[in-house]
Amino acid sequence: VPVKTLDWSDGVLSIIDQTLLPIEFKHIDLKSREDVWTAIKELKVRGAPAIGVCAAFGVLVGVHEVNPQTSAESITAACETADYLATSRPTAVNLFWALDRMRHCLSGLEDSANSSDDVWKGLEAEAIAIWDHDRKICRDLGKHGAALISDGDGVLTHCNAGGLATSDYGTALAVMYKAHENGTSFQVFADETRPLLQGARLTAWELQQAKIDVTLICDNMAAQVMREGKIQLVVTGADRIALNGDAANKIGTYGVALLAKAHDIPFYIAAPSSTFDTEMATGDSIPIENRDSREITHGFGAQTGPDDIQVYNPAFDVTPNSLISGIVTEGGVLMPPFTESIHQFLSEYSLHV
Amino acid sequence: VPVKTLDWSDGVLSIIDQTLLPIEFKHIDLKSREDVWTAIKELKVRGAPAIGVCAAFGVLVGVHEVNPQTSAESITAACETADYLATSRPTAVNLFWALDRMRHCLSGLEDSANSSDDVWKGLEAEAIAIWDHDRKICRDLGKHGAALISDGDGVLTHCNAGGLATSDYGTALAVMYKAHENGTSFQVFADETRPLLQGARLTAWELQQAKIDVTLICDNMAAQVMREGKIQLVVTGADRIALNGDAANKIGTYGVALLAKAHDIPFYIAAPSSTFDTEMATGDSIPIENRDSREITHGFGAQTGPDDIQVYNPAFDVTPNSLISGIVTEGGVLMPPFTESIHQFLSEYSLHV
Repeated sequence: VPVKTLDWSDGVLSIIDQTLLPIEFKHIDLKSREDVWTAIKELKVRGAPAIGVCAAFGVLVGVHEVNPQTSAESITAACETADYLATSRPTAVNLFWALDRMRHCLSGLEDSANSSDDVWKGLEAEAIAIWDHDRKICRDLGKHGAALISDGDGVLTHCNAGGLATSDYGTALAVMYKAHENGTSFQVFADETRPLLQGARLTAWELQQAKIDVTLICDNMAAQVMREGKIQLVVTGADRIALNGDAANKIGTYGVALLAKAHDIPFYIAAPSSTFDTEMATGDSIPIENRDSREITHGFGAQTGPDDIQVYNPAFDVTPNSLISGIVTEGGVLMPPFTESIHQFLSEYSLHV
Repeated sequence: VPVKTLDWSDGVLSIIDQTLLPIEFKHIDLKSREDVWTAIKELKVRGAPAIGVCAAFGVLVGVHEVNPQTSAESITAACETADYLATSRPTAVNLFWALDRMRHCLSGLEDSANSSDDVWKGLEAEAIAIWDHDRKICRDLGKHGAALISDGDGVLTHCNAGGLATSDYGTALAVMYKAHENGTSFQVFADETRPLLQGARLTAWELQQAKIDVTLICDNMAAQVMREGKIQLVVTGADRIALNGDAANKIGTYGVALLAKAHDIPFYIAAPSSTFDTEMATGDSIPIENRDSREITHGFGAQTGPDDIQVYNPAFDVTPNSLISGIVTEGGVLMPPFTESIHQFLSEYSLHV
């Protein structure tokens, strides 16, 4: 594992406090339901898959905290904790999905459990299953994507779709971790990714930890690096993918895809099956969220823009399927035409999830 | 004048201390040759034309400082000051050009001047002529470029080629100032321009001061803003233009030009005749300077990248002539094929400089 975003050991949940990176690399134990709620709320743990796994174990933390004597007390504590943790980040799909799995498990335990210990064991098995599932997806995705990287390649990535966002390899970075494990020799260029600098703070840091050759650049240097012939492929993550392959991701991804096209460099998205939105035929209807101007003018300790300046701060953009060379999933690399390949992937693959 | 980058009044040279922008808008008087040297060295005054004009008046500051009683004492003080100021920024072409003009003027005064007052008046007239020349270039350039902007347009610019870089209107921003004066209604999007944020700190500030509608964005948002249909033309400055029209400018300009092409948006360079390098047939031989990694990892007052991370920090890039729709100069807007139009412009225009 490149970096252990979270760990569950002897009944203790610990995470890397990502708000301290890249200056300080520190693990913290989450000892109460409030600790877990705050860690998610304050982005100490971030990335949809990692949040889901953290919340699942967070239910156990909430049970342990009240030291229940009966199965009924355990179940009550677990339900209350699940409801409470669901309020930490109101739009995180994986958070709700993981908590629903824990609640579903609890329903079964209401009938079968005879003691608080039975409830504990049942919930722990479910949380570990969620964790294992996330790790398996990362590994499978990495395995399929690693073949895209050849010896001597330069790989550009944007934002952080890495180990820190999941409980294991990540998505876009899983491709790189696996290629590195396979002994492929390559170089990564990481866009710093303004305004929140996830590339500088997280991607550069975790690839450096894994001893992968990584070079940090500003977002506006990607075109020059491509022109110098240093990039052979681009791999980024995605927040949401429509059924035609249009992919929403961190702001700047669309620009990188256009620059890759102009230099005849293949552009790949790496994302698990859960990223596909089966309600969305194309990316056209994805609304673009405009975030706080202070992220741009007051981001890192100094004011960098004038007082009262107008700011436009879209949080993400949509890369049209025509700019995407392939989509790396846990079931393989989907190729154009995406409407067909995505349909086939989801209809086959959703059986196994 | 949008902002008075520097002023000469009653024998006193004053500048805006640009290192304090956009937080503080402060004029400072430069009272000694050391003041002038330090202001140039520490980027309190910046932009090639503004540095040249500042140095020209700096020669007068150096003469005034020693209170000379004879023409010989005045000439000695002026020569010493010119030699000293030439060491402030060793690669600034306009600095040397302006100081050479002052030295040439001094050669004439050696014969003709009968008193320290004669020397003073001669030098002051020359410095004012340099200043007037820079202002006229800005005005003429702005006049020719303003016609490119229509009511309702959105204009994207990168870095700062504005009034703060010259003694008047600037170059790329001259186009906008003049269109604004003409009553054209338009909106500007200013790339923040990492790593040194000249767009956020300077361009956004000076357009805001001039009450031009300006919106600050991160560099990686330009593609999205174009996709939303908000940009009808791009105008940037240039540091050096080859005889075929290839243009070196701040890093990120090449990427913006590619994005403009992908969205069928015209991309213009605005630069005076002095920017054309008559020794350079194409942009291929322009070396790319790689600057200090700390500009990227420690730029905002907080460390934003990991310790010891590899960084690539090219200071500028070259936009090939095929991506350039036109070059706005003080003699008109040059159109493709540029090899011909630049040749004609320089052969006609260099007579008038």
